[in-house]
Amino acid sequence: VTAAAVDVAALRRQARALLPAPSYDYYAGGSGSERTLRKNKHAWREVWLAPRVLRDVSAVDTGIELLGARLRTPVCVAPTGFHRLGHAEGEVATAEGAARAGALFVLSMRSTRRIEDVAAVLDAHGGTWWFQVYVMDDRELTAAMVRRAAAAGARALVLTADTPVVGRKRRDSDELEISDDDLLVNLGQVDPQQMAQAADLTVADIGWLAQVSGGLPVVVKGVLHPDDAVACVAAGAAGVIVSNHGGRQLDQALPTAWALPAVAAAAHGSGTGVYVDGGLRTGLDVLAALALGAQAVFLGRPVLWALACGGAAGVADLLTGLTSDLEHAMALAGARTVPEVAQLRLAAAGLPGRTGT
Amino acid sequence: VTAAAVDVAALRRQARALLPAPSYDYYAGGSGSERTLRKNKHAWREVWLAPRVLRDVSAVDTGIELLGARLRTPVCVAPTGFHRLGHAEGEVATAEGAARAGALFVLSMRSTRRIEDVAAVLDAHGGTWWFQVYVMDDRELTAAMVRRAAAAGARALVLTADTPVVGRKRRDSDELEISDDDLLVNLGQVDPQQMAQAADLTVADIGWLAQVSGGLPVVVKGVLHPDDAVACVAAGAAGVIVSNHGGRQLDQALPTAWALPAVAAAAHGSGTGVYVDGGLRTGLDVLAALALGAQAVFLGRPVLWALACGGAAGVADLLTGLTSDLEHAMALAGARTVPEVAQLRLAAAGLPGRTGT
Amino acid sequence: VTAAAVDVAALRRQARALLPAPSYDYYAGGSGSERTLRKNKHAWREVWLAPRVLRDVSAVDTGIELLGARLRTPVCVAPTGFHRLGHAEGEVATAEGAARAGALFVLSMRSTRRIEDVAAVLDAHGGTWWFQVYVMDDRELTAAMVRRAAAAGARALVLTADTPVVGRKRRDSDELEISDDDLLVNLGQVDPQQMAQAADLTVADIGWLAQVSGGLPVVVKGVLHPDDAVACVAAGAAGVIVSNHGGRQLDQALPTAWALPAVAAAAHGSGTGVYVDGGLRTGLDVLAALALGAQAVFLGRPVLWALACGGAAGVADLLTGLTSDLEHAMALAGARTVPEVAQLRLAAAGLPGRTGT
Amino acid sequence: VTAAAVDVAALRRQARALLPAPSYDYYAGGSGSERTLRKNKHAWREVWLAPRVLRDVSAVDTGIELLGARLRTPVCVAPTGFHRLGHAEGEVATAEGAARAGALFVLSMRSTRRIEDVAAVLDAHGGTWWFQVYVMDDRELTAAMVRRAAAAGARALVLTADTPVVGRKRRDSDELEISDDDLLVNLGQVDPQQMAQAADLTVADIGWLAQVSGGLPVVVKGVLHPDDAVACVAAGAAGVIVSNHGGRQLDQALPTAWALPAVAAAAHGSGTGVYVDGGLRTGLDVLAALALGAQAVFLGRPVLWALACGGAAGVADLLTGLTSDLEHAMALAGARTVPEVAQLRLAAAGLPGRTGT
Repeated sequence: VTAAAVDVAALRRQARALLPAPSYDYYAGGSGSERTLRKNKHAWREVWLAPRVLRDVSAVDTGIELLGARLRTPVCVAPTGFHRLGHAEGEVATAEGAARAGALFVLSMRSTRRIEDVAAVLDAHGGTWWFQVYVMDDRELTAAMVRRAAAAGARALVLTADTPVVGRKRRDSDELEISDDDLLVNLGQVDPQQMAQAADLTVADIGWLAQVSGGLPVVVKGVLHPDDAVACVAAGAAGVIVSNHGGRQLDQALPTAWALPAVAAAAHGSGTGVYVDGGLRTGLDVLAALALGAQAVFLGRPVLWALACGGAAGVADLLTGLTSDLEHAMALAGARTVPEVAQLRLAAAGLPGRTGT
Repeated sequence: VTAAAVDVAALRRQARALLPAPSYDYYAGGSGSERTLRKNKHAWREVWLAPRVLRDVSAVDTGIELLGARLRTPVCVAPTGFHRLGHAEGEVATAEGAARAGALFVLSMRSTRRIEDVAAVLDAHGGTWWFQVYVMDDRELTAAMVRRAAAAGARALVLTADTPVVGRKRRDSDELEISDDDLLVNLGQVDPQQMAQAADLTVADIGWLAQVSGGLPVVVKGVLHPDDAVACVAAGAAGVIVSNHGGRQLDQALPTAWALPAVAAAAHGSGTGVYVDGGLRTGLDVLAALALGAQAVFLGRPVLWALACGGAAGVADLLTGLTSDLEHAMALAGARTVPEVAQLRLAAAGLPGRTGT
Repeated sequence: VTAAAVDVAALRRQARALLPAPSYDYYAGGSGSERTLRKNKHAWREVWLAPRVLRDVSAVDTGIELLGARLRTPVCVAPTGFHRLGHAEGEVATAEGAARAGALFVLSMRSTRRIEDVAAVLDAHGGTWWFQVYVMDDRELTAAMVRRAAAAGARALVLTADTPVVGRKRRDSDELEISDDDLLVNLGQVDPQQMAQAADLTVADIGWLAQVSGGLPVVVKGVLHPDDAVACVAAGAAGVIVSNHGGRQLDQALPTAWALPAVAAAAHGSGTGVYVDGGLRTGLDVLAALALGAQAVFLGRPVLWALACGGAAGVADLLTGLTSDLEHAMALAGARTVPEVAQLRLAAAGLPGRTGT
Repeated sequence: VTAAAVDVAALRRQARALLPAPSYDYYAGGSGSERTLRKNKHAWREVWLAPRVLRDVSAVDTGIELLGARLRTPVCVAPTGFHRLGHAEGEVATAEGAARAGALFVLSMRSTRRIEDVAAVLDAHGGTWWFQVYVMDDRELTAAMVRRAAAAGARALVLTADTPVVGRKRRDSDELEISDDDLLVNLGQVDPQQMAQAADLTVADIGWLAQVSGGLPVVVKGVLHPDDAVACVAAGAAGVIVSNHGGRQLDQALPTAWALPAVAAAAHGSGTGVYVDGGLRTGLDVLAALALGAQAVFLGRPVLWALACGGAAGVADLLTGLTSDLEHAMALAGARTVPEVAQLRLAAAGLPGRTGT
């Protein structure tokens, strides 16, 4: 008898025991004093919900439609870098796990496996995937990567918007070793320094990416301010991911649970999707995120722990288990479908008001 | 010299020492991380009251009128299952204790004593009782139980609405042993699996239960959202119990103290009663609940501890003591009658505002 | 070099070492779980002030006019019982200390010295005093006491309104010994049980006391709810003391710092004074109370500690020291006079909003 | 790899090891219970920011224009006394460090080096400086100091408004030794008692100082209440510094992070600058202050620790490092210039509402 199908904290402890310390720390750490890293997790646990009753939940469906694709779960795999730090098969294993769970996989531009190899395993398992983009100073190099991803079958692009400079993380270690083979598997002979995102990005790059990719939808990741959500909608973004980069960029950035309602309100009715990542660890956290206005959620570190501990099967088990916990929580909350969660207005207490200037 | 007539924490410790661990854990545990279980208790202690003065409290009356019955106290016995886990006489002892204290007894459908035997002891002591219903997939079996309860003298039905699926409780033990004799004393040859509530309940079942029972009033238990209270009122419910099933269903559900004011406001003026359970442990907690809009309160675990420690006499002492503490607190708060508590608008601070979507 | 002239915590520790445990516990304890007792103190420390600058504070005057009497300080001595438990000279010493500090003394009806003896020492030192009244079931006995106090020179009556029944205090000890000589010094042959306040008090008793006393102003002690303040104003009260009886009556009653602003607002413009007691320990606490709308403050336990440790001189030192600390804080806050503190609207943060029903 | 260029806590610990205890305590201590001292620091850390994205931050400029002077950073050196307690070269070293970092230096009237010597080193390094004034009872003596500062090149005066009497600090030690040579280096034969600020200051002294100085702008330091900001604007102040004197005057004064938004709102559009000091320790704190409406910030104790540990170079490193951390945080927050930080309305949560009277 257990209280939930998934225990991410146990998975993390197991991964810490397995991984070299620099690899674990690279994944686990946050910027500055790690205030946002910690608050991300706690903020979900401070959301108190008012479940609904007597609503015939004999059939609960966790499936969603996401930019035209049908998925079995709103729990998606966030883009994270360098999966071969965690498992020898790297992104190929992660992608297979996601596909087997019917979950969206987002491949990071910092993949340590070739884009085409990841795409092949996704195709083999009927997986849906998006491609994450750091726009680099060399735009043509960026465009080439985007075209490769589009050709390989990516259904959308995720533009990371919150990394004009790299966050400073105290846990980052000089001992972290990523071979050039891993680092440059997709880029070829490029100086690692060039991999930093261009600092001059604007909302105009949303349209540029769409055009370069031959018309793929563009989702902007890293939106915390409702005014930025409005700007992304106006610039044609297909979606925004409320994210503080897992607490790895600006420390003391709002926890995403607190930022989500205002962003969701700003995008409401626009047709632009609103998603969230950061600190989600349980099916209840996912339910809370849906209740606060997200249409899907993305998980980063938990997927890395599952990958390190169990490869593709570990990733599939994590995502399937979280989806099962979500399904159970949806029934208890009176929600038959994912969109219905937000319509039920479950969220009732625990969020701070907006104050300040 | 003691500060209160009743000390539930001491009673609980005594019961823990007496009971087999699986039985204690079955009673004591909550779902998930037990956040709602804990918050239920703390929330009452965070309510600060503004007592009224100079109001002639030389005569304080704790009596109430509840769905046509006159009771000596607004402290009622919540429906809980399997009382023979706690005491050999089971529900017969609990019911006798309640009746001796002049308190309402709600008999659980999961009674380990025959409905008719419990009814007999209640009759002998002039007790008032309601019957709690889990609507089972086999509606006819459900209806048969309801008819037996009505025939035995139940004055109302309590429809448990928050259990379309069973909450997952980490403390639940495979070692818990309930004999078939106990489990099926009222059901006969029914598979225990069938005892789970039907997941397809809707507000239409309120009318169905009323009809099946030959017109008994139906009280819906498990309402946390004011919109559900409105729906229950519209469907003819005689009352709603603000409840999160003692923190045993959706974890991170609102503590009932926080949910109560909005539900009370939603039902105000409708004639439908508003009651509350969850975490109440002292006469002061009861006063706070009345101040926040409840017309009566229900206690679950404290009654089980009293039953385990002292049988019928223990239950009677608990309820009498809490009523005495309530009477004392009412005098200090300037309230002469139970309904007057809510009219005095004593509650002044400690509840969170409603925020979120 | 010390941060303040007065350290009440040190005085309390010294008194605890000097006094028999039952006497110390009788003074120190609160009702129930002592939540209000503790919160009273903490609430003042959670009030953050916005001091004013550039206001010429070369002359700061802590003096006040209180019901026609001129006092050197807004720090008054609250009525507390049985001073001979703390010091052999009892209320005579306390009164002398207050008078020497230019502070108002309120003599409790539970005085262990004869009213006339206390009045004599006050006269000798130019002191101003009020007389506190528990209206007893025997109204004529009550009236006789009031007439004696009026004849002895009391300038006002303090009607204790929050004691229709006695709070239950876990620290109260059966070992507490008060001799009949002490207990009945003013009452003569009266059964101690009769000393409990009548439970049938109403606002009409304000007028009755004024009449019985030959026209003394009546101040109501124990007001926490603004509606009660309004009722007292309407009934002719000269003042109200925002008080929860030092956390000795209804536990979970609002801390007085939280209750004060609403009561002050309710009485504003009426000519009825608003005073406060409960948990005040420093000159800063006094400043906060004035900022939140009190025109004077009353101290109970600190005076008892000072009495136990130093008799009349100890009481005078305490009150003089607190007044000196207040004067210093007023200068830092930009306030030249006591009434000016409230006008400056210093209070800015730290109080909970009013919520609930 | 470190999370920030500057670690003020480490610098403080190093300074504590180097300095005589009375000197360290004189710098480190606060008044009363040091509540404001502690809260000043914590309040910045409780401000959660909503960074902006996609705003082309390829060029971030930390420079500001401050009362006509161009500075490389909004991080300024607050006036603090007796620098020779920390370093043999005293204010000359501090000033050189500030000038080398392109930061404003404010010279305290309590300088332990001659005004003209400090001015000379500032001139040599192209530094900008203001002169802080305690108006003394002997106004002519005050005026003489002001005229000397003006003649030496001070660009503005800082009128300390929050010290009509001196705060009482428990850590102050009778062992603190300041030689008469140090104390009176600028005053000549003046009794130290006369150094206490006149208690009769009013806003009219703003104009008097401007006139005495031959027209220097006057910045008022110690404003926490918005009404005082309005009065300073009306009296011709060039700026106000939101300050509680580093928690050394009225204890339980608002932390400056909480006071800042209302003061900034009160001065908005007036042309009067709004600055802040108190508890700022990191580039993130500076970003938060700018987001809440400050146009520049002032640091006191951190500069003293840097001076004690490293003289002029230590001060320069501190200010350069904080500016570097600020620049990094600005890029992450989407702000290209210092004024843009406030325009972005980054601040979103963590500040208490204004309540009370």
